[in-house]
Amino acid sequence: MASYLEDLVDSLISSSALVTYWNYIFPVLVGLYLAISLYDKHRYGRNKKLRITEPAATEKSGTKLDGIEYVGDLEHAEYDPVPALEEKPHIPYSGATVTLATDPLEAANRFYAIANNRRSVRKFSSRSVDVAIVERCIQAAGTAPSGAHTEPWTFCLVSDPTIKANIREIIEAEEFVNYTQRMAKQWVTDLRPIRTNHIKEYLTQAPYLVLVFKQTYGYKDSSAGTDKKQHYYNEISTSIATGMLLSAFQCAGLSSLVTTPLNCGPMLRTLLERPPNEKLLVLLPVGYPADDCTVPDLQRKPLEDILVRY
Amino acid sequence: MASYLEDLVDSLISSSALVTYWNYIFPVLVGLYLAISLYDKHRYGRNKKLRITEPAATEKSGTKLDGIEYVGDLEHAEYDPVPALEEKPHIPYSGATVTLATDPLEAANRFYAIANNRRSVRKFSSRSVDVAIVERCIQAAGTAPSGAHTEPWTFCLVSDPTIKANIREIIEAEEFVNYTQRMAKQWVTDLRPIRTNHIKEYLTQAPYLVLVFKQTYGYKDSSAGTDKKQHYYNEISTSIATGMLLSAFQCAGLSSLVTTPLNCGPMLRTLLERPPNEKLLVLLPVGYPADDCTVPDLQRKPLEDILVRY
Repeated sequence: MASYLEDLVDSLISSSALVTYWNYIFPVLVGLYLAISLYDKHRYGRNKKLRITEPAATEKSGTKLDGIEYVGDLEHAEYDPVPALEEKPHIPYSGATVTLATDPLEAANRFYAIANNRRSVRKFSSRSVDVAIVERCIQAAGTAPSGAHTEPWTFCLVSDPTIKANIREIIEAEEFVNYTQRMAKQWVTDLRPIRTNHIKEYLTQAPYLVLVFKQTYGYKDSSAGTDKKQHYYNEISTSIATGMLLSAFQCAGLSSLVTTPLNCGPMLRTLLERPPNEKLLVLLPVGYPADDCTVPDLQRKPLEDILVRY
Repeated sequence: MASYLEDLVDSLISSSALVTYWNYIFPVLVGLYLAISLYDKHRYGRNKKLRITEPAATEKSGTKLDGIEYVGDLEHAEYDPVPALEEKPHIPYSGATVTLATDPLEAANRFYAIANNRRSVRKFSSRSVDVAIVERCIQAAGTAPSGAHTEPWTFCLVSDPTIKANIREIIEAEEFVNYTQRMAKQWVTDLRPIRTNHIKEYLTQAPYLVLVFKQTYGYKDSSAGTDKKQHYYNEISTSIATGMLLSAFQCAGLSSLVTTPLNCGPMLRTLLERPPNEKLLVLLPVGYPADDCTVPDLQRKPLEDILVRY
């Protein structure tokens, strides 16, 4: 194949074939370029700069294991790397000292009662909420575990009405395209019982919006230097933190809704001036339900349908 | 461009150009084919069979939007699809009636104190735990929200010592390869302060292991018929449920550890005889810390580092 190609290249250069058959070659080259750029766009997404593979000679570069994309820093290839966390003596831990009730079964029952009382709310009251409550809930979410303790999350708390209106504008424009063009018919149909559409009044109704960003990588120096730090399992970690955020809201009597504004991430990131290592994971309006709030008449799966004993 | 291409095709067919210049066209076609197949492989991954694109004529097949791979069922192409959930009148919802304390700020403070008391535990006591506590915590996790209320999770609760030993054997064998070969040097180094290696005593020490599986799709008929049901955002939903599970454990005074056994998913799925639509997300040992348990001397980021106000 190689020598065949060499012959071809030779004949193209030595003869005037390249010029003569340019009419035929040009469209094919365009096709090739399109195919490659499509592949590239898909592989690296829009922000090409974000994925730089580790160049260390002894390792497989850019290895993707179970969904982890390895991000290194070309300028700082370390053959004797130092850990992102400081190495200190470990300290004793005797287990939970703060719980919900003295009796553990009673505590589990109480938490279940709180959690089972939660519903996704799509119509909010304008009743104000003490910002200290919401911030304490976010602080609780920040105690979530994360891969190699990277804490790869940023919580953007929006109360400014103009910014909420801008967010609504961005999301409604995209969601209109999503519902009418991008989403499959089955998907739109599956959402019919929940009665959602591209109109998102809750984005301006709710006193707060919490936009949860996952940090796809970080910096070793907290002052956002140049030395990049790997954020292992950042999506799972940030989603777990979101689960703790929902638990906190529910404990505090606040209602919310987990939304995933399709294709709006980059625009919302720009609006909130977040750095390129942050990607929107979910957006949650937070507040109290409107007086006339209704929710779908859903049942949850019984325990026997979600639990298997071994 | 279109008429230019038509002319080109016409001239290729009417003349013997196609035959004459086959030497030039063939390698370019090979290049095109390679580029397209590379793109396809990346797009659909290894498990081609699991991803069957929706054939409905009016929709883009296999559309991938913000990471959602659309799975349809070729044999059941519905041009007038029915929703996976029943369409019923909505019911009023007045907000949380069960909370952690009457005063919402006090409730948020109490939940934060519970959450902040959590540490990841890697050394467990053999002290037994009432299974009812663990099951109630799992039931609380099952109240998590999910895309289009698909509840795409299965919690496998393992107490059998033989199965725990089998799980440990599978994970330690893979983790040995992970630590010595698959993981990048930086990754292994980042884990050094946490002192983890491929030996996972906690897998047999802890009284329970909870293996959380995400269901990548489901069935419309709960008796696992042939009609597949789309599970939107199943990974984020199941991770959020895991965050609620951790909250529940902590409320009940139980300790655990979120682990992601790299490359062990398929073997553990086979061991536990889970169906092909279930994929391992995380594995959590659950119990009380050993008397001599120690944890890394870590600090959590202060609120100001994870919260941005707008």
